[in-house]
Amino acid sequence: MTESDLPVVQLTPGRWGDPDHSVDLPAAALEALKHLGVNRPAGRRDEELVAPEGGLAGGAREMLEKVLGSEQVKTDLETRWAHTRGYSTPDLLRHRAGDTTDMPVAVVYPGSHDEVQALLIACSEQHVAVVPYAGGTSVVGGLAPQGIEFVAVDLRRLNRLVRIDEISRTATLEAGVRGTAAEALLAEHGYTLGHFPQSYEGASIGGYAATRSSGQSSAGYGRFDQMVVGLTVATPRGTIELGRAPMSAAGPDLRQLFLGSEGTLGIITSVVLRVRPRPAERSFEGWKFASFDDGLAAIRGLAQDGPLPTVLRLSDEAETAVNLADPDVLGGSTGGVLAIVGFEGARTAVRRAEVADVLTAAGGESLGEGPGETWRQGRYRAPYLRDPLLDEGALVETLETAGFWSTLPALKAKVTEALVAALSEQGTPPLVLCHVSHVYETGASLYFTVISAQTDDPVAQWRQAKAAANRAIAAAGGTITHHHAVGTDHRAGYEREIGAIAVETLQAVKRVLDPHGILNPGILIPNS
Amino acid sequence: MTESDLPVVQLTPGRWGDPDHSVDLPAAALEALKHLGVNRPAGRRDEELVAPEGGLAGGAREMLEKVLGSEQVKTDLETRWAHTRGYSTPDLLRHRAGDTTDMPVAVVYPGSHDEVQALLIACSEQHVAVVPYAGGTSVVGGLAPQGIEFVAVDLRRLNRLVRIDEISRTATLEAGVRGTAAEALLAEHGYTLGHFPQSYEGASIGGYAATRSSGQSSAGYGRFDQMVVGLTVATPRGTIELGRAPMSAAGPDLRQLFLGSEGTLGIITSVVLRVRPRPAERSFEGWKFASFDDGLAAIRGLAQDGPLPTVLRLSDEAETAVNLADPDVLGGSTGGVLAIVGFEGARTAVRRAEVADVLTAAGGESLGEGPGETWRQGRYRAPYLRDPLLDEGALVETLETAGFWSTLPALKAKVTEALVAALSEQGTPPLVLCHVSHVYETGASLYFTVISAQTDDPVAQWRQAKAAANRAIAAAGGTITHHHAVGTDHRAGYEREIGAIAVETLQAVKRVLDPHGILNPGILIPNS
Repeated sequence: MTESDLPVVQLTPGRWGDPDHSVDLPAAALEALKHLGVNRPAGRRDEELVAPEGGLAGGAREMLEKVLGSEQVKTDLETRWAHTRGYSTPDLLRHRAGDTTDMPVAVVYPGSHDEVQALLIACSEQHVAVVPYAGGTSVVGGLAPQGIEFVAVDLRRLNRLVRIDEISRTATLEAGVRGTAAEALLAEHGYTLGHFPQSYEGASIGGYAATRSSGQSSAGYGRFDQMVVGLTVATPRGTIELGRAPMSAAGPDLRQLFLGSEGTLGIITSVVLRVRPRPAERSFEGWKFASFDDGLAAIRGLAQDGPLPTVLRLSDEAETAVNLADPDVLGGSTGGVLAIVGFEGARTAVRRAEVADVLTAAGGESLGEGPGETWRQGRYRAPYLRDPLLDEGALVETLETAGFWSTLPALKAKVTEALVAALSEQGTPPLVLCHVSHVYETGASLYFTVISAQTDDPVAQWRQAKAAANRAIAAAGGTITHHHAVGTDHRAGYEREIGAIAVETLQAVKRVLDPHGILNPGILIPNS
Repeated sequence: MTESDLPVVQLTPGRWGDPDHSVDLPAAALEALKHLGVNRPAGRRDEELVAPEGGLAGGAREMLEKVLGSEQVKTDLETRWAHTRGYSTPDLLRHRAGDTTDMPVAVVYPGSHDEVQALLIACSEQHVAVVPYAGGTSVVGGLAPQGIEFVAVDLRRLNRLVRIDEISRTATLEAGVRGTAAEALLAEHGYTLGHFPQSYEGASIGGYAATRSSGQSSAGYGRFDQMVVGLTVATPRGTIELGRAPMSAAGPDLRQLFLGSEGTLGIITSVVLRVRPRPAERSFEGWKFASFDDGLAAIRGLAQDGPLPTVLRLSDEAETAVNLADPDVLGGSTGGVLAIVGFEGARTAVRRAEVADVLTAAGGESLGEGPGETWRQGRYRAPYLRDPLLDEGALVETLETAGFWSTLPALKAKVTEALVAALSEQGTPPLVLCHVSHVYETGASLYFTVISAQTDDPVAQWRQAKAAANRAIAAAGGTITHHHAVGTDHRAGYEREIGAIAVETLQAVKRVLDPHGILNPGILIPNS
């Protein structure tokens, strides 16, 4: 398979995804927005772009061109704009407003680990800040070191399947390989990674690793960090290679220091991943429970006593009701809450029957494959819906957390309450939807979707709501993020979560690996 | 259950385990030793103890007594001797020789996290080195900071089950709780940890965490580090608490920095662990394969495609032959290699049948429950056998590594070859036995047992053999330790394994948390 055959969607900021897949809002959704007081802004349009002052200094350009060749150093406005921020709602709103703060002064395209390594050493010597850019799909401000001139290091040329070890079932993939391309490359050998986050059409291997991504099939395939057995990282001090064995007792697991490091400690250039045979069978089912609490008890039973399906998620009453607005989803069934239960693998029939027994005993009612297939086919659709919702004048954003099972009901209630209060205070009472998206033996994640009318300053409006949600998460004992990472948006919460001494520890690690502080400055690790 | 009811064996160095469980060597074993040229040393006996020079300085004693009370500070020779080194064969040999180097100048017994915390702050201020001591079962020199005066911090009073969260299935256990006591405490609530390393009768929760222990039921219950969802660590800089959720994308997983840190970055005082219901059913089976390679392919099939039993281990031809010397083991069957396959849980019949299908298809022959039960009943016996073997003049020691499946055959061959060469050169050709003790999707561990005649200086004899094995492990791409940790014995190999920049990173972490370098100096992290 040649590079051009790979199924890669090149995203550009401002609107999500493949333009051919853009969606119109259903009539029922438009009707629902009226109840939230949403009004389509008259004549709002994308602002014209004005280049910010400053730019790449002459000495820096010379250095970059020397290391990578002049054709791999771009400073045109269009390229830089296409590497500005990610895909949070505030990012989209700022993009629509033509806000060119956070724009890189240049975009560079190294083609190999060695080039990334040489680049970091040269940039460190000249104190040039760099932000690694793979899929560009951050929703937490992970690409925007505020107020600092920086060069975006686009890793799209690191796009190879380097090695596949079929006996050990591992594959070495470069950091710039998109999720879709990874699946295509592995499929040629009969394997799958099984990692399908909602950002699947845009995100990349390096980003998955650097942000501890988690996909929709995590119950069956695990989180991305659980798939990683080895890492190669370029740092301003040199290259680090980790992972001689699946597991080791040789000291701290340093792979876990770079997973989730968000480009602040080095640039991950390739990852050795556990792969699995492509599933022979696949089926998705809908199940209905009388209440979220009933559904929660049922999926906890599966998470703790098994058997685990490959996909397991549970919508709350509000999210189920919104799904019901689409008459296809529940086949006419009304009320209660919807769980999606998916199976992939070989000989899934026994596991399906066992899961059905557990769910039935827990009060579940099977809705058959209809709702499951509807969910599967629409699994990457939600981010596409956001653009027309923003067009209509709605504020729509998501956030997530995780906690132990015993804390989840209070965590859900407190976060919902905080969001409702913070947006109602601003005159825009929201609809707050929630689902459990990932389950573990000891707990689960909660994924919230928030929809309200926009105020005149929707960026500030959301900032206030998000801050309230973050405070509620901390107070209720949840983690500030289960799979979106820290970026700049969660930095304060992260600092509170790990405490001052742990922050100092990370700062010390950073000082060793990145002595001049050129790597994603201001992201994740508070400045020392 | 009161403290005195807990099934705790207080080990003392020099001979392993509960004196009531000591074993005599079977006649067949004594016969086999003759073939290795092993001669019982005439009249060798334990040397009389001579106290080393030096001791606890007056100011330090005053400080310790002020923090903990005078009754919790012991400096008598017997107590100090009982906290000298661990249970590697060199440790036992040095103990028998009355070697009092590596003896702590005092042993202190804090009773709570707060006391450990206060102790570390005070010791840091006065530059008093401390070695945390829980079960004392290190086999890698993890309790012997060479040439440095130190205080042993015995954590046995931190022996409580602090909390059990039955909804989340987590239990908070203090660091000094022994493995056996943990099971007894959890059993009262109907739970198990499922962690059964060979050191089970001696080792403790804190040690499991600090060394990334792995138990014999790891296929079913996971490694100890996989059971940990939260940690409380006392450091000279203050307390760190980690683990708000089962999984998080909030930065690097800092729990993984303290797991495996071997007391060098802080003292783990309690751990929040995932627990499971006590199994309703339990059965162990023996399976026979024509060769180790056949058996390896079969267990790889289970590890990669499932279903996984709870216990899965495979002896090589040599180890199987030694087991066969005990006529009970294979019920008269001869030749080939032995696998042990164990099942624990609810409704295990289906899983057993599926595993039997996989193993049969891979050429396995069921030997029924006899060999399985023999193994289960003797599962903690091996360390007891070492003492009479040493008495007879044999050198016997174990070592372990792990690698990816594709590397295992070469890794096994190279390590065996290195051990045979290094001991043959010394005139004591060894018997080298090996088994796969822990399996993962992408690889497995190899556990070697080495038996030869002792030379006149068996400590030096083993040092040379072990160094050769370590070089072979590194050259064949394995990890220097899969579950025994680094201590002092693996430090050089560890440094080579992670590389100079990673070592500097750990040194920087240590400088932040332990600015005066009082925590287990010389263990794990090379001095900067």
